[in-house]
Amino acid sequence: MLEALPAGGDDPELGRFAKLQRDYPSRGGKTLRGRLVVLSAAAHGAPDLADALTVAAALELFQAWVLVHDDIEDGSEERRGSPALHRLVGMPVALNVGDAMHVHMWRLLHGLLAGPPTAETAQVAARAALATRVLEEFGGMVTRTAEGQHLDLAWVEDGRFDVGEAEYLTMVRLKTAWYTVASPLRLGAVLAGQEPSPALTSAALDLGAAFQVRDDVLNLQTEDGSPAYGKEALGDLYEGKRTLMLSHLLASAHADVAEEVVSALSRPRAQRTEAQALQVLAHMREHGSVAHAQRTADRLAADGLSALEAALAGAPNRPVAAALLGELADVADRTS
Amino acid sequence: MLEALPAGGDDPELGRFAKLQRDYPSRGGKTLRGRLVVLSAAAHGAPDLADALTVAAALELFQAWVLVHDDIEDGSEERRGSPALHRLVGMPVALNVGDAMHVHMWRLLHGLLAGPPTAETAQVAARAALATRVLEEFGGMVTRTAEGQHLDLAWVEDGRFDVGEAEYLTMVRLKTAWYTVASPLRLGAVLAGQEPSPALTSAALDLGAAFQVRDDVLNLQTEDGSPAYGKEALGDLYEGKRTLMLSHLLASAHADVAEEVVSALSRPRAQRTEAQALQVLAHMREHGSVAHAQRTADRLAADGLSALEAALAGAPNRPVAAALLGELADVADRTS
Repeated sequence: MLEALPAGGDDPELGRFAKLQRDYPSRGGKTLRGRLVVLSAAAHGAPDLADALTVAAALELFQAWVLVHDDIEDGSEERRGSPALHRLVGMPVALNVGDAMHVHMWRLLHGLLAGPPTAETAQVAARAALATRVLEEFGGMVTRTAEGQHLDLAWVEDGRFDVGEAEYLTMVRLKTAWYTVASPLRLGAVLAGQEPSPALTSAALDLGAAFQVRDDVLNLQTEDGSPAYGKEALGDLYEGKRTLMLSHLLASAHADVAEEVVSALSRPRAQRTEAQALQVLAHMREHGSVAHAQRTADRLAADGLSALEAALAGAPNRPVAAALLGELADVADRTS
Repeated sequence: MLEALPAGGDDPELGRFAKLQRDYPSRGGKTLRGRLVVLSAAAHGAPDLADALTVAAALELFQAWVLVHDDIEDGSEERRGSPALHRLVGMPVALNVGDAMHVHMWRLLHGLLAGPPTAETAQVAARAALATRVLEEFGGMVTRTAEGQHLDLAWVEDGRFDVGEAEYLTMVRLKTAWYTVASPLRLGAVLAGQEPSPALTSAALDLGAAFQVRDDVLNLQTEDGSPAYGKEALGDLYEGKRTLMLSHLLASAHADVAEEVVSALSRPRAQRTEAQALQVLAHMREHGSVAHAQRTADRLAADGLSALEAALAGAPNRPVAAALLGELADVADRTS
């Protein structure tokens, strides 16, 4: 993915700009989404994986620029164990760095249109058809992610505390499940010349939702430190994020506890203390809200995995399909 | 351009998200860049202007999302006579709205790849070749704009006051001249199946630089109000922007005046008073810095127009080429 980003130029300040675009991509990470694209393409019988590797790199670059912007939007302090980019270079420069990375993601994908110089007309047309489908899938994915992000941000901005479980799951499907699981699996099918089935998509959305619910739960793990997580512990509580735990707590707590929680989470982030965050967390544990979220994730993971196994039953490459299912079992049961 | 944006959906909050994406595009504007694409395509002999209209809409959408993000980066109060989007909905939501608009710009352009359903293989290949060239031009344009924006922001962020005239002109070519004049003219040639000449590009860059220098000068016009301008008067002074007037002033003023100006412009925006901004403006007028900038713009406009006339001498459609030159003469001499 780093090869897709500019290496710098004559102007030292533009050299720094290029370097800033490589910051988040260089911080490491799971590269989960990229691996899912390649595995899915192979499982669906793609004859050659060069295009899948390009799409995988674009998907990792997508996550990198989204994280730069998300960290600004959420006022996050850290990303993968280091200060968030806007803490290092200021919000204006970081926002624009994210935009430049966004453009390079598309430029990388547009490279799919270029065939060998001597390609026959029929090959050029086939390549254009493939690239067009990939661009459609990618465009739909980025749009959905932004829609999910909007719901997440707007609920906090508007002070909405009546977000129910179904609404929460709609939000995480849009914000996380599409780009984390559904689009990688669908893109793999497209790269193998197949149209992804609705069954594949729906199974993948369950798995992606399970992944996000587990992420929300991991965010609350403070006692054991969980250093592999890389985002600040309790960040969601400081940011007042609507989560499954919060919905459950507000729906099951007595009015005075609910009022206390709403009052704590309604303050601007800067005015929220660690004591308040820990108090909300204690209420969540006491009311079984964390256990409830884990059970919901368990159910989504189990449903998603069995549906995906059925959807991939006819996949041309059985061993790779099995490896893909194994990878997704880890994803849906993530413990870090 | 509005047709390219989502109309909304079932979820009222997503309906609001769609509406927010249509805010800046609905505020009106010069639609200068879009008109230049269409005129250039026609002047270069494009047989049909449907694709040019798509590219023109994408270019207007480009400007709209860039303005949403620029207004956040610059901490601007107003845009086209109304509050900037982040003043209406908060920075996090506005940033994400800009990202969603950015995606729709690319999705609109990807529509160029789709030909009529019954198209022959040779037509599909030709259409793919055209779309690929348009996407290349567009990608280069957006990257350059972000580079110019980076220089503009980083100079303020780093407290650099030694930005000379040549560096300033490099910055405005990247930030403004490419997307305002050079890329529209080049895209017009590409849409007519021609490769844009270096002479066309260089003339267009001079005209685009003249446009930005005049914009900087207009920003200083306070006495007569200039309501058509739509950005807050003296905004550049509040934001501490490096301009040709500032370079000239710092290069020609006595040390004590230079020190006073640097000290005034080094403060955070919120601490800068109107009296300080007006004092810097008075120094600029006294030292002939505004007149110097106007002369530079005059020279760039004259050089650019005569070079462009030569570059378009062989254009297939002479009457439209003449109209294009007339439009660009207005652009380079803009008084509002």
